[in-house]
Amino acid sequence: MNREQLIKQIFTKKSFLCVGLDTDLNKMPECIKNSEDPIFAFNKAIIDATAPYCVSYKPNLAFYECYGLKGLASFEKTISYLKKFYPEHLIIADAKRGDIGNTSAMYAKTFFDEYNVDALTVAPYMGEDSITPFLEYDNKWVIVLALTSNKGSHDFQLTQDQNGERLFEKVLRRTQDWGTIENMMYVVGATQGEMFKDIRKCAPQHFLLVPGVGAQGGSLQDVCKYGMNKDCGLLVNSSRGIIYASKDENFAEAAAEKAKELQKEMAIELEKIIK
Amino acid sequence: MNREQLIKQIFTKKSFLCVGLDTDLNKMPECIKNSEDPIFAFNKAIIDATAPYCVSYKPNLAFYECYGLKGLASFEKTISYLKKFYPEHLIIADAKRGDIGNTSAMYAKTFFDEYNVDALTVAPYMGEDSITPFLEYDNKWVIVLALTSNKGSHDFQLTQDQNGERLFEKVLRRTQDWGTIENMMYVVGATQGEMFKDIRKCAPQHFLLVPGVGAQGGSLQDVCKYGMNKDCGLLVNSSRGIIYASKDENFAEAAAEKAKELQKEMAIELEKIIK
Repeated sequence: MNREQLIKQIFTKKSFLCVGLDTDLNKMPECIKNSEDPIFAFNKAIIDATAPYCVSYKPNLAFYECYGLKGLASFEKTISYLKKFYPEHLIIADAKRGDIGNTSAMYAKTFFDEYNVDALTVAPYMGEDSITPFLEYDNKWVIVLALTSNKGSHDFQLTQDQNGERLFEKVLRRTQDWGTIENMMYVVGATQGEMFKDIRKCAPQHFLLVPGVGAQGGSLQDVCKYGMNKDCGLLVNSSRGIIYASKDENFAEAAAEKAKELQKEMAIELEKIIK
Repeated sequence: MNREQLIKQIFTKKSFLCVGLDTDLNKMPECIKNSEDPIFAFNKAIIDATAPYCVSYKPNLAFYECYGLKGLASFEKTISYLKKFYPEHLIIADAKRGDIGNTSAMYAKTFFDEYNVDALTVAPYMGEDSITPFLEYDNKWVIVLALTSNKGSHDFQLTQDQNGERLFEKVLRRTQDWGTIENMMYVVGATQGEMFKDIRKCAPQHFLLVPGVGAQGGSLQDVCKYGMNKDCGLLVNSSRGIIYASKDENFAEAAAEKAKELQKEMAIELEKIIK
């Protein structure tokens, strides 16, 4: 999916919501645990219920890998299901990979060719050759960690160099020598509030993938106030707040309700940039 | 495996060699490609041939993930084989994971409980809560990326902060607040030469996992000169230089020969610290 198609989706659906598929057997309703493939069954129900309200899905690989081969099979089935029935949704594999050049090239092949996802999250610590192999695929995206949502984000990402540039700013600046606004996004945590102003100074046009609304405490309004650009430029992710809205049989409807609430708030924010 | 057991292995076998199992269908001999599970068959042959000369094996997950479920099955079989027949070898999953706390906890469970490897490589960019979940397992190791072997390592890892501390030094310093020499190692590329002196100033006692000897051009002698401590403190990895020493039917013997050559050089280096 290219940038133009993504922007079109956002304004058509009045949503920049990404639903995080952090699917956990311990948190899903009892009623679905007896399915042959409960992880896929849960995802399918969540996807069918929330698709009208979101433009993207983000399965987090950790939640699939932890069930070994079975989990990976559920991941594959989920991607195939999305590709077949919801081809207009951007699929982000949240895997935070990053290795030396020849190994990153293997990961790129795995996720873009084999699994056929649209985007992959990547850690920048190893520098240029760990990121550029992901940029060689048409209509695919690399999403580089810039300023993450967690408490530990302050340990290294805020370190100022001798010119006063913070590490996340250096990541934003240097990576723009390698990728473009057409194939690169950044992860910026919703918990970072006004820091979005600084992000936008370094990367005014890029799309930002924003986790941390909901369970982690970030505010959608702050994210939009400081982070939105004329193309929207945001994909705001909610995982636990949507997919575990209820543990009853009505879990999919409850998830749809939560997604719809967020979509409505997003429609209001989008109105502001249309005018 | 704990530190004491690892050190004992090293001095008993006169080797601190780690063999990297970066198993690639395109690079293995034709004769083995017809096996039912060629990746496992190749690994098994390499392991049986090289085990006397090394103390550790390091499968790189990218090379297994790229074959999807089949690849992961070969990875699992390789680990089980090692655990059963070579339980004294340290198994390092080179996966370079790292995510927010609850997700890192999932990865820790996957690799330490499910796959039962001894150690996992982790990227530090996301800070404390991305690393500490891996430290909660007895006799398991987290191996944090510090100064990697690739060209891109210079992009961010060498950035000096306002006190003149470089990012890799900050990683070495801060992570020591979280882990100990009993459960934490660092990745330092063999291509970094004299930089090992600076590493040892920050982390005199820790074990270092050192990739980049061989195909990437690092020198074993330099690594030992600047990086070895009284307990050895090094695990030097070679992947391509050993496992693809030959593409003929004698590939396993050729791999053993290369591993033996390195082991002999290592024995000479170890002699220096025994005296």
